[in-house]
Amino acid sequence: MSRFEERIHHALDSFQIELPSWGFANTGTRFGKFQQAEAATSIEEKFADAAEVHALTGASPSLALHVEWDLPNGVKDAQQIRSLAAKYGIRAGAINPNLFERQEYKYGSICNPDKAVRAIATDHLLESVEIAKALGMRDVSLWVSDGSNYPGSQSIRRRIDWMLEVFAAVHAALGERQRMLIEYKPFEPAFYHTDIADWGMALVLARRTGPKATVLVDTGHHYQGQNIEQIVTWLLHEELLGGFHFNDRKYADDDLTLGSIDPYQIFRIFHEIFSNAADVQQIPFMIDQSHNLKGKMEAMVQTVCNAQEIFAKAAIVDRERLGGLQDEARLVEAEECLREAFWFDVRPAIREWRRSHGIAEDPLDALRTSGYLEKIRAERRERNAKAVVSYA
Amino acid sequence: MSRFEERIHHALDSFQIELPSWGFANTGTRFGKFQQAEAATSIEEKFADAAEVHALTGASPSLALHVEWDLPNGVKDAQQIRSLAAKYGIRAGAINPNLFERQEYKYGSICNPDKAVRAIATDHLLESVEIAKALGMRDVSLWVSDGSNYPGSQSIRRRIDWMLEVFAAVHAALGERQRMLIEYKPFEPAFYHTDIADWGMALVLARRTGPKATVLVDTGHHYQGQNIEQIVTWLLHEELLGGFHFNDRKYADDDLTLGSIDPYQIFRIFHEIFSNAADVQQIPFMIDQSHNLKGKMEAMVQTVCNAQEIFAKAAIVDRERLGGLQDEARLVEAEECLREAFWFDVRPAIREWRRSHGIAEDPLDALRTSGYLEKIRAERRERNAKAVVSYA
Amino acid sequence: MSRFEERIHHALDSFQIELPSWGFANTGTRFGKFQQAEAATSIEEKFADAAEVHALTGASPSLALHVEWDLPNGVKDAQQIRSLAAKYGIRAGAINPNLFERQEYKYGSICNPDKAVRAIATDHLLESVEIAKALGMRDVSLWVSDGSNYPGSQSIRRRIDWMLEVFAAVHAALGERQRMLIEYKPFEPAFYHTDIADWGMALVLARRTGPKATVLVDTGHHYQGQNIEQIVTWLLHEELLGGFHFNDRKYADDDLTLGSIDPYQIFRIFHEIFSNAADVQQIPFMIDQSHNLKGKMEAMVQTVCNAQEIFAKAAIVDRERLGGLQDEARLVEAEECLREAFWFDVRPAIREWRRSHGIAEDPLDALRTSGYLEKIRAERRERNAKAVVSYA
Amino acid sequence: MSRFEERIHHALDSFQIELPSWGFANTGTRFGKFQQAEAATSIEEKFADAAEVHALTGASPSLALHVEWDLPNGVKDAQQIRSLAAKYGIRAGAINPNLFERQEYKYGSICNPDKAVRAIATDHLLESVEIAKALGMRDVSLWVSDGSNYPGSQSIRRRIDWMLEVFAAVHAALGERQRMLIEYKPFEPAFYHTDIADWGMALVLARRTGPKATVLVDTGHHYQGQNIEQIVTWLLHEELLGGFHFNDRKYADDDLTLGSIDPYQIFRIFHEIFSNAADVQQIPFMIDQSHNLKGKMEAMVQTVCNAQEIFAKAAIVDRERLGGLQDEARLVEAEECLREAFWFDVRPAIREWRRSHGIAEDPLDALRTSGYLEKIRAERRERNAKAVVSYA
Repeated sequence: MSRFEERIHHALDSFQIELPSWGFANTGTRFGKFQQAEAATSIEEKFADAAEVHALTGASPSLALHVEWDLPNGVKDAQQIRSLAAKYGIRAGAINPNLFERQEYKYGSICNPDKAVRAIATDHLLESVEIAKALGMRDVSLWVSDGSNYPGSQSIRRRIDWMLEVFAAVHAALGERQRMLIEYKPFEPAFYHTDIADWGMALVLARRTGPKATVLVDTGHHYQGQNIEQIVTWLLHEELLGGFHFNDRKYADDDLTLGSIDPYQIFRIFHEIFSNAADVQQIPFMIDQSHNLKGKMEAMVQTVCNAQEIFAKAAIVDRERLGGLQDEARLVEAEECLREAFWFDVRPAIREWRRSHGIAEDPLDALRTSGYLEKIRAERRERNAKAVVSYA
Repeated sequence: MSRFEERIHHALDSFQIELPSWGFANTGTRFGKFQQAEAATSIEEKFADAAEVHALTGASPSLALHVEWDLPNGVKDAQQIRSLAAKYGIRAGAINPNLFERQEYKYGSICNPDKAVRAIATDHLLESVEIAKALGMRDVSLWVSDGSNYPGSQSIRRRIDWMLEVFAAVHAALGERQRMLIEYKPFEPAFYHTDIADWGMALVLARRTGPKATVLVDTGHHYQGQNIEQIVTWLLHEELLGGFHFNDRKYADDDLTLGSIDPYQIFRIFHEIFSNAADVQQIPFMIDQSHNLKGKMEAMVQTVCNAQEIFAKAAIVDRERLGGLQDEARLVEAEECLREAFWFDVRPAIREWRRSHGIAEDPLDALRTSGYLEKIRAERRERNAKAVVSYA
Repeated sequence: MSRFEERIHHALDSFQIELPSWGFANTGTRFGKFQQAEAATSIEEKFADAAEVHALTGASPSLALHVEWDLPNGVKDAQQIRSLAAKYGIRAGAINPNLFERQEYKYGSICNPDKAVRAIATDHLLESVEIAKALGMRDVSLWVSDGSNYPGSQSIRRRIDWMLEVFAAVHAALGERQRMLIEYKPFEPAFYHTDIADWGMALVLARRTGPKATVLVDTGHHYQGQNIEQIVTWLLHEELLGGFHFNDRKYADDDLTLGSIDPYQIFRIFHEIFSNAADVQQIPFMIDQSHNLKGKMEAMVQTVCNAQEIFAKAAIVDRERLGGLQDEARLVEAEECLREAFWFDVRPAIREWRRSHGIAEDPLDALRTSGYLEKIRAERRERNAKAVVSYA
Repeated sequence: MSRFEERIHHALDSFQIELPSWGFANTGTRFGKFQQAEAATSIEEKFADAAEVHALTGASPSLALHVEWDLPNGVKDAQQIRSLAAKYGIRAGAINPNLFERQEYKYGSICNPDKAVRAIATDHLLESVEIAKALGMRDVSLWVSDGSNYPGSQSIRRRIDWMLEVFAAVHAALGERQRMLIEYKPFEPAFYHTDIADWGMALVLARRTGPKATVLVDTGHHYQGQNIEQIVTWLLHEELLGGFHFNDRKYADDDLTLGSIDPYQIFRIFHEIFSNAADVQQIPFMIDQSHNLKGKMEAMVQTVCNAQEIFAKAAIVDRERLGGLQDEARLVEAEECLREAFWFDVRPAIREWRRSHGIAEDPLDALRTSGYLEKIRAERRERNAKAVVSYA
């Protein structure tokens, strides 16, 4: 086994990426959803699908949950989740509260000028913390979709303080080893101002909130041209990098498959993590994508494989040599040192790793020939057919 | 009456902007819709709302229709539309086919690699032409939302020819004085490639299709930084400007109120139209917005008022003097000559124009005190409450 | 005098905007410079021009200086500056060190992997502090143009610490009431990563450096779509807003005249300042523009007038009423409350203010008829003609 | 030799990329230039450097020339160029007129409102055609950098017609087999409007000008997010693709090394060319980059190698299989079919190709050990040291 192969195998041994429960359900754009017969509806179906992805890839042992959709009765549903986790051998990952779906949240949730609405949102967050405790989950992922659509229509300034109040309450409720992850996003669903628009705002909020508050990087939540790996480096420098929501994009928050549009960028992100993280395994890598055309299962397996491949490429960068070349400003050589790893074809080594772990060499092919897709389509088709949602 | 006032009144006399029937219905983002008690559901409600907006502003005598939502039975519904138009004194404006909502369109409508799906889409377009003929409408607005989400997943090249085939069929079906308006959009709902992504593609399609094919400019369908007024000028130069879908945006296709984010840009667009159009009145100005927070009626009245104000400002530019300053490259003076009009407060003159036409001086205020909102909320609340649509 | 007029006059009484010495010199793009006969070369010419702008506008009593260009002998030139300031009645404003022009800075100045180069840069910064002390200037404006052009070619991470070391040294040298302003910029002249790319990085640096370190907002240094007024609000919230470099842009760092592309945006920035700043007068407003086509003097006078107009508009927003409407989420009314001020024509009130202060009502016109332009063109033409700089 | 290797060798046999003479000279940003001892100044030095790059890579047998810098005496210098071409075994490639450097072009060259300036520009273009004829060059590359910086300062509309007039004159002067290539660019050096801002405008101009007029795609001249390969496909569809100026960018027209920021994008461009071009070899691939940090020679050799690698990857796409998968909308399989080629490590096959052609396996390494760099640095250092150009 060559030096590269060893490092690739070593990297894959420790690489895990969390699946999102909502990634198995039908999703779409504001113009409608294309229904898939195989889409999961119940939480059990989502666990089953996640288990299948993990069986095929060996790299996705946990499932992020969405309170509103997966635990509609809140903490009362925790027991069911525990049973499903045990049954399917899939761990419950991060908990995701929902601050955008209730009609009350029209003018904001935790930033709403109406105190009563903020209280509803706070209660929901506190219940989410309770759920996380009940299920032994470390991370509460907070996406605050609040914002405004028109200059003047809301007070940017006062909403900051309302947010800080709620965050303080959530932080106080966290258990010893729990964390809150604060996500940022420049726009959508709000189109003039989003209350947490960039990593700077998330950082200030995390700092002001307390030591258990960190920043969550969703790779699709940036401006065009923004250097995401640099932000990751700064967050690592400040010891505030809480985790990732991975996806790719060409225009806005397109929620495409990781590495499908700009694979070199995700490689650079992993490279900065390898270069600067105290403990790579402590950083939660989570998938957050919305596939409205690709098959749900196919897309998820493909994503995990992409992630493994690009992670493996980043693992074999000769960082010691690179550091020396950077020191001497030997620009082209340093650049080529980095690219050497990017262009190396890691796929044979990954196939070998899979063989040695009793996993199919080609997980996508294995999915197609497994019969699983036929099975779930037959089981789920009827219910999905009833659920057509239209734009009008 | 001053010189400016006269020109403002003259401009307003001829200014009309078309309302979209879908602008009175509940719409939202992919994260959900906030239901409004006052939202219109039936086509009659949409006509009623449009009539109210026109009564308040005197500038919106026509209503764009959406085939799928307003004429679900196709040309059979034409008689009903005619009756409503007569009853409410609102003309049926452009007809809008729908190429995105059917499940068959998952991989495209007129660009779908499956001939059978292209045939469905073609039939729908031909029926739309029939409707337009039946109702005496001149313009068929074609938004082709087709595209693909991933490199390689579809053939960019072959889809061009499929599109051309369908457009040829539609063009052949158009009546003597009918036109087809080809809309372009860079992304959404497709996120890697959209088959008609920019005005260049729309122009090529229009040229290849025939003399009744023109280009439709939706102000929200551009890249960041793109100079829209320049595109308008080129389309006028090429005699291919078919009309406008007006809205404003800060990030993507945000579908915000016209002039709410960058009023100077819309002023410049109107200025280029005044400078270069053979007949300003022949260019259809249409509203295409999606208000998920603002009240539907309020937003529509506000939009028409904004449009009147900015159109009035553009009307009073001293274009003769401006041309001379441009010729001599007196840059600052030329710029100030343009801005002189932008900064002029046209509101008093517009109030005067309204008074002289028997319209309320402040249409937004008149709407609030008219009782209309209370009336429709009471009538429509119950049905709207039942129609809650969620993201999950 | 109406209520609006009073508030406008009051606002103008306190409004000052600082001129940049380099704004009177020839500048251009990487494709070349168009020489102006009137361009200033010597520091005396720059003071003279600034004095003329102030005489015409009554709003620009200070001149920002650039160490490399205005004090080539460093602190030894301080006496000359003092004399010129006295002679022309113009105060020396912020001091601007130069970290981009020396050949040594090819791979960075304070982020250069070579310690010897970092020492050169540090010395230059410390000398700049000395100059500021010698001239009684409060603010040292730090634009760190460092970065890299290619992934891998430099270590993003290690350069952060080098920067922090130098900033600590500069901070230690600052006098009691002095401040350092840390500027951020996403790109140019570096095209892959810029060491201080956004306000988040500048904020972290300022926080880590000490209480005299603040953040400088250059309005042209943002991503497309970024909400600048929101960043201003956050910096005010964190008490870290150090000042502004004003200009406008459509694409990149275009350095155009303030308010020339998007006047509504600059209005919103001023509105947030009025809403949230403890003391508006303590925030340095500085011009940083590069006019390669407009006449230098004309452009500067026009800029000050634009700034006065937009500042005046922001001054008359009825913020009390606005707050109430925001509280009740009366979106359209709140928006209209803000726009009411934007659309108000402040020019008559400003003309009146000028009259009452013995200033020409139309400063641009006064400049053209003053004979000043003819005078300096005659004096400076010959020298400028010799200084042609080409791209090749 | 495997199937892939054969196709790679076949592709490389026909692959050529043209070097820009200005790529060997010192260039920089508007903030200054970092002087390189090795930079070429004379046209002979540029030919010598190009010959060295071609000797090392076997893929760059021609040199694009810049009239203003390489033939300062116009057609009189043609004989010298012929001699140098013969001496160095490098063909003169496309001719590049210069429409931005003369002081007369301040308000535009061929779009200048002053007829006399348009005449100067026209004469220069006609002389460029003469040069091209004298040297047997097929292509005249036209970059019209004209535009305006402020709304209103110039007439967008009238400048279109002035441009068309000049283009007609140039077209009339072209020889039987000559072509004019019309380049587009959204901004820089103009910042409000650029007269040829996008491919749509270039296409209209080419169509109106005549059959010898085509469109030149500079990969750095697009909006953020724009799908360049789609534009290439449309230009091929319209038989108007004239050629490429290759470079890469992250933000604006950064002129970085091809494939250094987004290698997947350039792969997709080559893939569309392979898919749709009648004759790939007829499309001129030209480099247009501005390296202000990387060594001039190093950067150029690296660029050619990058281009070979990515071209080779695109060559091995299984386009027949891909077409079938696209037809059946098997999205993930089609995507993976394309990516299969992208991820294949072509470097061993390319090394083998080089060996078989008597070229060094690693051209960058060969450059470093060749002694060429030391030689030219010694010869050129002194002159370059004198040429320091500053921003001030």
